[in-house]
Amino acid sequence: MSEAPHLTFDLDSRGASRGYLVVPGGIDRGELSLPVFSLNEGEGPRLLVTGGNHGNELEGPLIARRLIDWLPEAQTCGRVIVLPVLNPLAVQAWSRNTPLDGLNLNRVFPGRADGSVTERIADAVSRILLPAADTIFDLHSFGPTWNFPAAATTHPISDPDLMARTVRMAEAFQLPLTLVWQHNETAGMFDMVAQNQGKVFVCAELGGGTVGANSLAIYEAGVRNALLALGLVDGEPEYPTYRQQKSGKTLETRPSDELKSPATGIFEPRCSVLDEVKRGDIIGVLHPMNSLTAESINIRAPEPAIVLGIGSGAHVEINEGVALLARPLTIR
Amino acid sequence: MSEAPHLTFDLDSRGASRGYLVVPGGIDRGELSLPVFSLNEGEGPRLLVTGGNHGNELEGPLIARRLIDWLPEAQTCGRVIVLPVLNPLAVQAWSRNTPLDGLNLNRVFPGRADGSVTERIADAVSRILLPAADTIFDLHSFGPTWNFPAAATTHPISDPDLMARTVRMAEAFQLPLTLVWQHNETAGMFDMVAQNQGKVFVCAELGGGTVGANSLAIYEAGVRNALLALGLVDGEPEYPTYRQQKSGKTLETRPSDELKSPATGIFEPRCSVLDEVKRGDIIGVLHPMNSLTAESINIRAPEPAIVLGIGSGAHVEINEGVALLARPLTIR
Repeated sequence: MSEAPHLTFDLDSRGASRGYLVVPGGIDRGELSLPVFSLNEGEGPRLLVTGGNHGNELEGPLIARRLIDWLPEAQTCGRVIVLPVLNPLAVQAWSRNTPLDGLNLNRVFPGRADGSVTERIADAVSRILLPAADTIFDLHSFGPTWNFPAAATTHPISDPDLMARTVRMAEAFQLPLTLVWQHNETAGMFDMVAQNQGKVFVCAELGGGTVGANSLAIYEAGVRNALLALGLVDGEPEYPTYRQQKSGKTLETRPSDELKSPATGIFEPRCSVLDEVKRGDIIGVLHPMNSLTAESINIRAPEPAIVLGIGSGAHVEINEGVALLARPLTIR
Repeated sequence: MSEAPHLTFDLDSRGASRGYLVVPGGIDRGELSLPVFSLNEGEGPRLLVTGGNHGNELEGPLIARRLIDWLPEAQTCGRVIVLPVLNPLAVQAWSRNTPLDGLNLNRVFPGRADGSVTERIADAVSRILLPAADTIFDLHSFGPTWNFPAAATTHPISDPDLMARTVRMAEAFQLPLTLVWQHNETAGMFDMVAQNQGKVFVCAELGGGTVGANSLAIYEAGVRNALLALGLVDGEPEYPTYRQQKSGKTLETRPSDELKSPATGIFEPRCSVLDEVKRGDIIGVLHPMNSLTAESINIRAPEPAIVLGIGSGAHVEINEGVALLARPLTIR
């Protein structure tokens, strides 16, 4: 049995610390050392920022790196812990899941000390870092195959007070979109473990597609806005301009808002993120691959909605998700 | 021995035809039927349009589909053959190369009748479709991991007359960028086989990243502009607006213009496509993954240039390409 998960430095030390969260080895591989930064300025909010939960969503690790650069000059109180890459094995493979065990880190929380490497990462984070924070920002994105606006999201939370505080925290990012996302596959999510402990957990979905310089500036501004709202840093929020508009929308999306491909073939997107669509509007077209005489199939909006995310033009299987719709938030 | 590659219809039939290019089976798999469209309006230019040469570049197959939709109403003369998907096995896998034999279709031309499936596709196209065209547009893109403007490209051609005609044809797309691309890995490209036969071959690189509705409109306009220039359809060219500018640039890029990662780690793009950079400007930053105390490495422009393409924020290996620079065309 290897040693227990631990940090190589003391979170209670004042000032900036850089070290590692050590994830013990197991039957599948040796120990992992995840680089961690902590800045302790005494009393105040206790924030944990994580990125790289999924290995093909690099927006989070890059914003976490930028945060580490400017926090020492900016933070006035409290403690911020930054773990840029939760799952380095998935990041190295540019893969959503961990190649070694095939697991999705964000479905195995709180993890298992005697599990496979993905479960051991979740266990180390749950036991060592989560107790040290009251607020958590886990920085995701929609990955390379979707167009998606920069969003701060939460799932519905049964405790109405925690739900209200979480939505307010998400809105404080001032990103183009704040989203309450109701879906059915939430078991094992980092979010759930944190929220069950009464913590405010915001899952940022920092866009989709390629990670470029202009988008990173928007995401960085959003995270800084949230730190301002927490009182960890001083200054004025900057509301990033997205598609010529500065004001954000707060929307909700439900499982029935996911549009799926009616057949296997090539998906052609016909609308763009944040488009408003009427019932019957064409969202995209599915082209069969094996014939130029078979009809292409229009995929239409089942009701009035706002286009939240739209899949990239690509080959899709039947019933694969190709678009996500949303509407103004009614549940708070 | 299975039958020879063939078309299931006669290209000389007048009007629109839809059928298949049959690629014979071999030791690795059975025969493939690639859907083909042809519209024969008699005398005039003979054009072949192909897409899906690489399986994670779906812009081409989608623009080819759109072309098939509007050509019957628009084409006034000549013959246009459209093969939306050259490599369905790669498209189904969203993979640059063919999973079955690991080959890059665009490096095995003119192919081999007794080779593996990728070589048999190249052989069928080279023997059946290429002789039926004087001009070829092969619709590529930069794929999901690069930001790249919509471009019509050619490699340098030793015959100066063919070079001049090819650059003029590429410029006729009126895309944001026309590019003469000098690189060292051209053996087995579709381009070379066609150009060696004196044909005008334009390789379109229809952007990079996700395939969205707005970008597809630009690419479609570019292909229509080229058909107008050939005299195959009537009408006025539409110059698509890209980043608030309508006029295109004609640039060249050389092997030394590819900037490579100085180490393994996470690449952060710091500039955008078509940015003009001075010598020493930061193009991107390479962050080591295994430490927060190791210095991140700035990747700088070695000379004044225009940013042609920039890699998405992602994990990269040492010496992996992360940016492509270019400058105004001097070789014509």
